[in-house]
Amino acid sequence: MSSSVLSTKRAAHVAIHPWKLIENQWNAERHIESESLFALGNGRMGQRANHEETFTGDTLPGSYIAGVYYPDKTKVGWWKNGYPEYFAKVLNSVNWIAIRAQVNGVELDLNTCAVESFYRELDLEHGVLTRTFTAQMPDGTRVSVEATRILSIVRDEIGAVRFALNVDHHANVRLAAALDFNVTNHDANWEETFWNAQDAQAANREGWVVSETKKSEFRVAAAQHCTWEWAEGGELAAGASASSPSAAGAAPAAEGTWSAEARTGWAENSWEGPVNAGQTLVLTKYAGVVSSFNAPAQEVPVRAAERAREAAAAGWDALLAEHRAAWRAKWDTADIAIDGDEAAQQGIRFNIFHLLQTFTGVDERLNIGPKGFTGEKYGGSTYWDTEAYCLPFYLASADPKVARNLLVYRYKHLDKAIENAAKLGFKNGAALYPMVTMNGEECHNEWEITFEEIHRNGAIAYGIYTYERYTLDRAYLAEFGLEVLLGIARFWAQRVNWSEHRQAYVMLGVTGPNEYENNVNNNYYTNFMAAWCLEYAAYAAQYVREQHPSDYARIVTKTLFRAEEELAHWADVRTRMYYPFWEEKQLFLQQDGFLDKDLVPVADLDPAQRPINQKWSWDRILRSPYIKQADTLQGMFFFEDRTDRELLRRHFDFYEPFTVHESSLSPSVHTILATRLGYAEQAYAFYLRTARLDLDDYNHEVREGLHVTAMGGAWMSVVHGFGGMRLVGEQLTFEPALPAAWTRLAFHLVWRGATLHVELTPGTLTVNVVDGPDTEFGVGSQTFTAKKGTPVIASV
Amino acid sequence: MSSSVLSTKRAAHVAIHPWKLIENQWNAERHIESESLFALGNGRMGQRANHEETFTGDTLPGSYIAGVYYPDKTKVGWWKNGYPEYFAKVLNSVNWIAIRAQVNGVELDLNTCAVESFYRELDLEHGVLTRTFTAQMPDGTRVSVEATRILSIVRDEIGAVRFALNVDHHANVRLAAALDFNVTNHDANWEETFWNAQDAQAANREGWVVSETKKSEFRVAAAQHCTWEWAEGGELAAGASASSPSAAGAAPAAEGTWSAEARTGWAENSWEGPVNAGQTLVLTKYAGVVSSFNAPAQEVPVRAAERAREAAAAGWDALLAEHRAAWRAKWDTADIAIDGDEAAQQGIRFNIFHLLQTFTGVDERLNIGPKGFTGEKYGGSTYWDTEAYCLPFYLASADPKVARNLLVYRYKHLDKAIENAAKLGFKNGAALYPMVTMNGEECHNEWEITFEEIHRNGAIAYGIYTYERYTLDRAYLAEFGLEVLLGIARFWAQRVNWSEHRQAYVMLGVTGPNEYENNVNNNYYTNFMAAWCLEYAAYAAQYVREQHPSDYARIVTKTLFRAEEELAHWADVRTRMYYPFWEEKQLFLQQDGFLDKDLVPVADLDPAQRPINQKWSWDRILRSPYIKQADTLQGMFFFEDRTDRELLRRHFDFYEPFTVHESSLSPSVHTILATRLGYAEQAYAFYLRTARLDLDDYNHEVREGLHVTAMGGAWMSVVHGFGGMRLVGEQLTFEPALPAAWTRLAFHLVWRGATLHVELTPGTLTVNVVDGPDTEFGVGSQTFTAKKGTPVIASV
Repeated sequence: MSSSVLSTKRAAHVAIHPWKLIENQWNAERHIESESLFALGNGRMGQRANHEETFTGDTLPGSYIAGVYYPDKTKVGWWKNGYPEYFAKVLNSVNWIAIRAQVNGVELDLNTCAVESFYRELDLEHGVLTRTFTAQMPDGTRVSVEATRILSIVRDEIGAVRFALNVDHHANVRLAAALDFNVTNHDANWEETFWNAQDAQAANREGWVVSETKKSEFRVAAAQHCTWEWAEGGELAAGASASSPSAAGAAPAAEGTWSAEARTGWAENSWEGPVNAGQTLVLTKYAGVVSSFNAPAQEVPVRAAERAREAAAAGWDALLAEHRAAWRAKWDTADIAIDGDEAAQQGIRFNIFHLLQTFTGVDERLNIGPKGFTGEKYGGSTYWDTEAYCLPFYLASADPKVARNLLVYRYKHLDKAIENAAKLGFKNGAALYPMVTMNGEECHNEWEITFEEIHRNGAIAYGIYTYERYTLDRAYLAEFGLEVLLGIARFWAQRVNWSEHRQAYVMLGVTGPNEYENNVNNNYYTNFMAAWCLEYAAYAAQYVREQHPSDYARIVTKTLFRAEEELAHWADVRTRMYYPFWEEKQLFLQQDGFLDKDLVPVADLDPAQRPINQKWSWDRILRSPYIKQADTLQGMFFFEDRTDRELLRRHFDFYEPFTVHESSLSPSVHTILATRLGYAEQAYAFYLRTARLDLDDYNHEVREGLHVTAMGGAWMSVVHGFGGMRLVGEQLTFEPALPAAWTRLAFHLVWRGATLHVELTPGTLTVNVVDGPDTEFGVGSQTFTAKKGTPVIASV
Repeated sequence: MSSSVLSTKRAAHVAIHPWKLIENQWNAERHIESESLFALGNGRMGQRANHEETFTGDTLPGSYIAGVYYPDKTKVGWWKNGYPEYFAKVLNSVNWIAIRAQVNGVELDLNTCAVESFYRELDLEHGVLTRTFTAQMPDGTRVSVEATRILSIVRDEIGAVRFALNVDHHANVRLAAALDFNVTNHDANWEETFWNAQDAQAANREGWVVSETKKSEFRVAAAQHCTWEWAEGGELAAGASASSPSAAGAAPAAEGTWSAEARTGWAENSWEGPVNAGQTLVLTKYAGVVSSFNAPAQEVPVRAAERAREAAAAGWDALLAEHRAAWRAKWDTADIAIDGDEAAQQGIRFNIFHLLQTFTGVDERLNIGPKGFTGEKYGGSTYWDTEAYCLPFYLASADPKVARNLLVYRYKHLDKAIENAAKLGFKNGAALYPMVTMNGEECHNEWEITFEEIHRNGAIAYGIYTYERYTLDRAYLAEFGLEVLLGIARFWAQRVNWSEHRQAYVMLGVTGPNEYENNVNNNYYTNFMAAWCLEYAAYAAQYVREQHPSDYARIVTKTLFRAEEELAHWADVRTRMYYPFWEEKQLFLQQDGFLDKDLVPVADLDPAQRPINQKWSWDRILRSPYIKQADTLQGMFFFEDRTDRELLRRHFDFYEPFTVHESSLSPSVHTILATRLGYAEQAYAFYLRTARLDLDDYNHEVREGLHVTAMGGAWMSVVHGFGGMRLVGEQLTFEPALPAAWTRLAFHLVWRGATLHVELTPGTLTVNVVDGPDTEFGVGSQTFTAKKGTPVIASV
């Protein structure tokens, strides 16, 4: 095993289980981590696993709504021309799960009660979060709670909580459902709040709160409809307050009191009354959360109320049942089964679960933030991670329109990418996609990244290529793809300059995927991707011209494409591009100056010096040879079928020993390449680090949220790595390499109209067409054809 | 003339005069510029030329006290390991010049009155700021004012203002002297105020205000003692208020009223009463400004009061007379006279004036901020500018102890420089002096500068070399110099790394003097300076060992100097240092990648694209070949006597055409080098840009303050450039080259115990020993000896 894989994982506090995350005891110190790990989402909104009831201990409240952001004024020490004015941040939004429970006048709060037992479970298969605990109140009353929560994957503006409370002595209980919009972001640049409260109302058993974001003027409303009942049967009747419109047919409990209260940013509905020893009071809270991202602003509050009533009308059982079924159906195409290694099994399902709940593909205005819906960090914005690490998962696990929507997202941002390039001095429709974006505008403000980590443009073109090759949906090029590729190619053609000295095109002042080098010249990966983009854009132009002439004419007119001249220039740049190369060792160099470095391998570093991003000053990191994540190797990974295995081996053997893998995106690529090279032990070590990165908290930062985009890398590690699935040309092929401990690996592939089931056991590959047309695939030099219902078994 | 010298000077609003700055009319739009240009200082404190009386128009209030700073919390977008926690900022301090004049109850304010005439004069020869104006009040009363201000160069905690007010109608006048500590900094990172008010008192004709800086806890007090009198004779007697202790013997004016008022941060003494038409009321305000930088904190207020009383006791006439005489005496050694070019004459005296009032050399804890006492920008902190641009002026114009104190300043910061290097991973007493500092700690927070613009270490060693060579005070090496040089040499020896590939020592990841390239490898200047430092430190070690053995023993013990081993390593690094070199053209390259750039000379740039630091995004600047200020040439400038003229010419001819001179420190070095190469026209164009940079506001930023450190460069342009004074080895030599328009150039040199007067006319150089021993100097291949009273006349 490579000593460069630093094992710093923490003792897990979540039990191993193939389908669940389970915590068996209350651990206040790790609660914030659990809030990340147990987070729920449904593509439209997300919610960290914050406690419903009041909690005065350490917590990172997080309720996020896809697409709703705040343009936080840029904070820099030294302004550079070209910096954007703001950083779009995902907002901590309304706390719609809030419940307040008081027993004999004292707030139930796990921070102040004596917690006697605690159990938390996230059911990955069905998307349900459950928590049960028993706590003793200061007055000795023992309170038991079972709280269940869903964010409906069927109705994506609906969430629901069922909160059952039992007391072991007769007690006066107040159980309130609240909506709380008095929220802040931890990562606000200027310690501002991001919301203006607009309205709060509560009456009978319903309430709503409405707020608008400052500057970006997104309006968000949360509404609730609440029911209280006895677990033992019977809803509670009205006491002193007016009868609720939805309270009907329950046994009267005359001494209970309903009330409702609204104040700025807060709406609350409550019931208060006596609860007998052993009796269980159940509050069900149906919430609607609607934003002006999806509805006309003036309709937002009413729609939220409608969603809450719709949920209440369906009822808890039905809502839960449809939600569970829909989740189960997702797994039918997305699951990966691993036998013989339960930690790996749990890890991969945990990753798939979060990918599925972060992006459902129904809205092409949405994308995948590095932390998904599990934290504020990185602003919930879109990075190149999507195309480089996430797209393959969605392509293989869901309807092709899901992946297509990820591409359309970039198409819709093309005008902004052209504006962005123009701001930096590029002309003639050149497009530079932003490093970080929420709405197409650049949000990042660190010159060496914002202006120089331009390889992202290559990943966006590569995403189109990946999609086109996988689906054969070439019409996409005519409809959307070519325009994007033109903008990108024009950028690269201008970004290089001719070096008289080298008699070649060079690319100066870039930052490659290895962000531990900044402002370098001739980063191999960037130069390679640029040349490839020029080639691919030329291919796309030719394809569209020949196959979709009317689209081609439209695009030429729109983009003022001077085909002959531009194509000739692209070809010139591509063929005379400079690549730093070390003749002696036949190695492409990461950048011009790499060989001048003090080439001490990571294994020879004092472990006390690691991770270097915490121990070393930035300049020392920059001049060191240490690589944060695959860089030269990233290109060889993207273009495996153009990369000779011995070339790959030379480069892997040279670069991996300098790689510190301090990016969550590093181990997955290395898993796949190591597998290809037959470095089995190393591959498996990398895999654990990617698939259980968050569960085992390798980077000690899971508190801030999960590494959601890295989870796409974990999926690739299994399917492309150990499963050995890859495209050679346009042909599906398998070259599997099961880790030693695994007795079976099985996964599905959504593949050109078919759903395939792929099963691997030591020495045997079985491919079954679950649904759809006959499917051809290769194993080694052999080609097989699988037909529905007739599995093909191949030796591997 | 090089087309790279961009002429963007603005129409001057200050009249040309050999000894004065004069403004003949009120120009509200340019008042903030004048506040910079007409600023006063006395080494201990400084004051922008803000109006004394209330002014509600655009103004940048600025009252600065040397050494008093605030550690403003660092503001960055993305934190990098090693960044300092704060940026030390010079503080806008108490406004001690404040006067409030009310005529018939209406505030005199040039922003609201009709200004009928206005005259402002800064007498450079005597350090006196005078302003006269006539303004019509809204009620028609015509008010004439003559305000005179000094910051005593003799008693550096004393300032005084004489404010004479005349009315053309009988009017009720209130004339108040105020001390105002309710001040803010424009450049505060977090929009905080930096002061906590502590005390304010006013009684009789005296008052004080006392405040303390937040965090840094500097205490500052300003006190005033005021007198009111009739210009026509006679002090005003007490009216309703208590008789002032110092008001004695004046004719009674029963209807006048004195009053005193104090509130938070404000103390005011006033007189109010009738003034007849044509009568002139004179307020003289004697101020003491004392800080805990110079006095025990508890004594600060009392000392301020004492200073104010001391000034009042001396009286305005005596105070003014001693101040004028002291200024005149400074010019006796510091003046440069230019005949035939009044603009150049004014420019150089203006520069010398500001250098003299910024640093007087009496306190080795003080230094020269890039803006001196004329603005907030750059924090009033110390940069490498001091050693590289200012030291030669002070060496040649004042007692050697003035320059020596600039060196001792760095010696006293050595421990902090060692800590700073340790923070960045350097060991064993290696010292990295800060890029920007107030007290020895690094304040800068931009990785490519803070961590990488390390050539500053070379300048600090070069400062010692300059001093030692000029004064022959070698004992300085034993006392202080060697320790500093050891720390610097140790830094360089660790900062390089051995490149297996090149079989040489390389220096990766630096920013040279040309800040338009960042994080480059093998910057020629930096490598050159590093090697030279290693050589000079070795020389110094040997010298001290031989000549001052007991000092040597002390230093070895203190620094744990392993002489044999370290010297051997230094020699190895020095002799095997790598320098990028272009064989074909026999040129040292600015850095490894310079030849890969698109080498379009500045002359071919669209003028609309300039200045590039305003027009281009940062990445575009970085990958361009454009040079902000001398870089490779800076080393050849520093070591002219090691630089063959043809080598210099090749490099000047190659680099200057790529130089945009967008640093105020660029034109002076180019003046001197162009002179040496016989490029007379170019030299003169550069000179105007340096000597009149602020007067003609070439950079359109004089509002923010003057380029005080660049003024040292202007001095060098004249004396080292046109005057051709330089050291060859240790020999004083002259190789003059008068600009065509100049009929005479004369300057003094303080030179090894002598004061020389050097006069140049076309073809003739005259050197006279005004005072001191016989002095040898060279002109061409000839050597002369000048004796006191017997001028030597040489043909040139």
